[in-house]
Amino acid sequence: MNISADTVPDKHDAKDMGLKSASSRNLYLALIHYPVVNKKGETIASAVTNLDLHDIARAARTYAVSSFYVVTPLEDQQLLVKKLILHWTEGGGGRYNPARRDALETVRIADSIEKVQADIRKERKKEPRMIVTSAKAYSGSLSFPAFRRILQDDRPCLLVFGTAWGISSDFISAADHILEPVKGNSDYNHLSVRSAVSVILDRLLGDREIV
Amino acid sequence: MNISADTVPDKHDAKDMGLKSASSRNLYLALIHYPVVNKKGETIASAVTNLDLHDIARAARTYAVSSFYVVTPLEDQQLLVKKLILHWTEGGGGRYNPARRDALETVRIADSIEKVQADIRKERKKEPRMIVTSAKAYSGSLSFPAFRRILQDDRPCLLVFGTAWGISSDFISAADHILEPVKGNSDYNHLSVRSAVSVILDRLLGDREIV
Repeated sequence: MNISADTVPDKHDAKDMGLKSASSRNLYLALIHYPVVNKKGETIASAVTNLDLHDIARAARTYAVSSFYVVTPLEDQQLLVKKLILHWTEGGGGRYNPARRDALETVRIADSIEKVQADIRKERKKEPRMIVTSAKAYSGSLSFPAFRRILQDDRPCLLVFGTAWGISSDFISAADHILEPVKGNSDYNHLSVRSAVSVILDRLLGDREIV
Repeated sequence: MNISADTVPDKHDAKDMGLKSASSRNLYLALIHYPVVNKKGETIASAVTNLDLHDIARAARTYAVSSFYVVTPLEDQQLLVKKLILHWTEGGGGRYNPARRDALETVRIADSIEKVQADIRKERKKEPRMIVTSAKAYSGSLSFPAFRRILQDDRPCLLVFGTAWGISSDFISAADHILEPVKGNSDYNHLSVRSAVSVILDRLLGDREIV
C-alpha cells in the first residue's frame, strides 16, 4: 500500500473548532498524591511516579488542556518534580527532545488542591468546578456527554485524578461532581491512571466526528 | 453529593453486546521492539519498558482483547518479560494484587511478528489482517469507523504498536492497513505508546453509546 505521509484535510468547521478550543481552555487537570488511599483503604501520601508526569503531560498537550497540576504536600517530592520539569524545559532534555519540552511546560506543582483552586481563580477570575474521577460507579455521577456540555460554559473545570488506590472518600464527597467511570468492554476496571487520563481526555476533547 | 457506589444499569441490548464481544475476540495486540527506529531514523531493537507491559496488559484486559504479544528478538529481554509475567501470574505479585494477575495473563511473548501471525493462525484457523499504527498521517489509511466495521467480520486482526521512535517504514509498508493517527485537540502528536493504545482501544471497543 501507499505509505507516503501527507497532511490530513481539516474536517471541522470554524464553529466546531471554536467550541473545542473553549472546552480545552476550560479544562485543568490535577494528579493528587494526597489524600489518597492505600490497599487497606488508609489515607496516605503517595510517591510521585516519573512516568505519570511524562505521559499525562504529553496527553494534556495533545488535547490542549490549560494546565496539569501535580499535587503533593511532601517537599522532597515537590523538589523531585521541579528538577524533572527543569531538566526537560530548560536543561539538556529539552534540547534532546523539544516535543517533550512542550509537554512538560504544561506541568505546575502545588502542595494542596486549595492552592490549585486559588491559582485557577486568579488566572480566570472565576471559581472552578471540581470534578473527581473514580474507577467505581456512583449514583448521580456526571456522564461524559454532560461533562462535554459544561466544558463549553465560560467557567473553568478542575478534573482530579488520584494515585495509589484512588482518591479518599472525604475528598470525593467535597467535589462538585464525580465523573462516571470509564467502561471498556468487560467488568475489569483497573486501568492505570495514565491510561484513564488519556481515555477520558479523548472522550471529552478528542476528534469525535471521525470516530 | 451522594457518594454511595452502586451498579450501573446495562444500557445495551443483546445484539450490541454480541457485536462488541466478537470485536474484542477478533482483536490481538502486538508491541514490537524490533524493527523500530531511533531518533536518527536508524533501525534498532529497543529495550522492553516494564510499565508498557503493565499498562497495556491492563488496557487489553479492560477492553477484553484476545491477547497482547510482546515482540522482541533479544533473548535477555524475553527472559526479563517471562520473569515479570511469572511474578504477577504465579508468584507473589498475583497474591498481592489479583487484578494485576488477571491483566498479565493476557500477555504472550514472541521473537518475531511472523511467530505472532503463526500463533493466531493456529488458534483461529484464519489468516490475521495486520494493521499498523503511526503518529503520522498516511494517504489511504484505515479510519476508526472502518476498523470497527472490519472487527465485526469473522477474521482476526493484529494491531501493531511500535516502541522507541516508531515502527520502521519497511514493516509499515508490509502491513494490510495503516490506522489513521489519534488526533487530540492540537497539532501535537507525541502521545506515549501506553496512552495511544488506551485511546485506540477505547475508540474501537469502548462504550460509545454513553459517550
